[in-house]
Amino acid sequence: MSAFLNDTFMAAEAARLHVTDLSIQRSYAVFDFFRTVNWRPLFIDDHLERFFLSAASMYLPVNKTKDELINIVQQLVQQSSLSEAGIRIMLTGGYSPDTYTPANPNLLITCSPVKTATAADFEKGFSVITYEHQRELPYIKTINYAMAVWLQPLLKEKKADDVLYHYNNIITEFPRSNVFVVTKEKKLLTPARHILKGITRKQVLSLAADVLMTEERDIHLEEVYNAAEIFLSSTSKKLMPVVQIDNIVIGQGKPGVVTRELYRRFLEKEKNQ
Amino acid sequence: MSAFLNDTFMAAEAARLHVTDLSIQRSYAVFDFFRTVNWRPLFIDDHLERFFLSAASMYLPVNKTKDELINIVQQLVQQSSLSEAGIRIMLTGGYSPDTYTPANPNLLITCSPVKTATAADFEKGFSVITYEHQRELPYIKTINYAMAVWLQPLLKEKKADDVLYHYNNIITEFPRSNVFVVTKEKKLLTPARHILKGITRKQVLSLAADVLMTEERDIHLEEVYNAAEIFLSSTSKKLMPVVQIDNIVIGQGKPGVVTRELYRRFLEKEKNQ
Repeated sequence: MSAFLNDTFMAAEAARLHVTDLSIQRSYAVFDFFRTVNWRPLFIDDHLERFFLSAASMYLPVNKTKDELINIVQQLVQQSSLSEAGIRIMLTGGYSPDTYTPANPNLLITCSPVKTATAADFEKGFSVITYEHQRELPYIKTINYAMAVWLQPLLKEKKADDVLYHYNNIITEFPRSNVFVVTKEKKLLTPARHILKGITRKQVLSLAADVLMTEERDIHLEEVYNAAEIFLSSTSKKLMPVVQIDNIVIGQGKPGVVTRELYRRFLEKEKNQ
Repeated sequence: MSAFLNDTFMAAEAARLHVTDLSIQRSYAVFDFFRTVNWRPLFIDDHLERFFLSAASMYLPVNKTKDELINIVQQLVQQSSLSEAGIRIMLTGGYSPDTYTPANPNLLITCSPVKTATAADFEKGFSVITYEHQRELPYIKTINYAMAVWLQPLLKEKKADDVLYHYNNIITEFPRSNVFVVTKEKKLLTPARHILKGITRKQVLSLAADVLMTEERDIHLEEVYNAAEIFLSSTSKKLMPVVQIDNIVIGQGKPGVVTRELYRRFLEKEKNQ
């Protein structure tokens, strides 16, 4: 791992924050995460646009321009010697004088090895459970994943790969992924509200426009249980079929034709970016 | 400030966490906060009991006994040369290998100057606003105060001292304080559910038992607007009258007789602990 903290490149081991940082004191920080494919950052414009939006939404000034950030990322990728890397760019509430009031933000960028879902992972698919929860400030990519980490023992117990949040029986998202539903009438649905709008989600919607009808709207749990296909999308999981949800098998437990076609198109897009 | 990190006493400046710590990556950490009065930690048994409960609820093992923690706190207080100090004891998800899975927790204890509410603050009281929000995992004292910090600009705009959360018109708590309502029938009410049970709250309920009828139950916003008195309780604010809420003046804008009597009893208790 190589790192950049405020204005300094450093070895990963040296990247430390003083405990008065507001991320540690009050979980006040935003971030974004993307990866490189063959040395090139994937969808970096979209990720940086969202990063600046997250920062502004949390009233945290970014003292670098988009071009400066791209430049730092490129240097980190070179230093890391990783052709496929995960880039995490983070902005915290800074070293607070009273453990509560934001101060001068700390900017941290790290470049690390990244594990992405393989073709074999795709064929196997995910078995998931649902859980009633609405994330706070869902449109902002904050560091608050405490609920998701807290649910890990439950996932282990249920032998589930991930958890789909819903609220009042309307599904929203996975902790780190967006959800898509293919109905039996071959329509592609994805939630429009109370979610973080993923960059991979945006790509899927764009690719799907040539394949089938798409609709962004509230989706009831019943529609999920009756889906022809379900899949999730994320930076590291790409498109991942959901073949079981709450003990209900979806699409005979195999990736569906629509999911497969969109996955094929996504891999093509990723390769040719 | 003096600090203790894992097994080492150190200068405050040296207390740093590597950025892979799960508090920084995923806001996964618990803490407790208490203060010393005349060199002696106030209600330390209750605070440590809650700390161990928070840690267990987040599946984070504490590798120190209660007595060992008390001993560390006493050494920190001596080193700090502060007769009135704030002690923060924190346990994080540790240095995660994948930025998601908890690892060996980091234990951090700091001893710093503390600012407590004065008698003059009490006489002035607080003007507060309400905001619809239910905290996640409210019974556990996690570091997640992002919503509270995020609301600070709104509080400034409204010239409010604090924000009272409610959900479906049932009040719960302030971000860092519990709420009490004295009805016109001279009954003391405080929420029973969906809150963090404060140590000062526990003291207030105990002291109030000799003064008036008390009830722990759901409280509707309407009851708050029609209250004879309102106050909040916390470690650093002790008992603080709420003299205005959402533009509605409470008790002619002055601390009420019940609040004043409980405050007097609390200061007595604090002095004689």
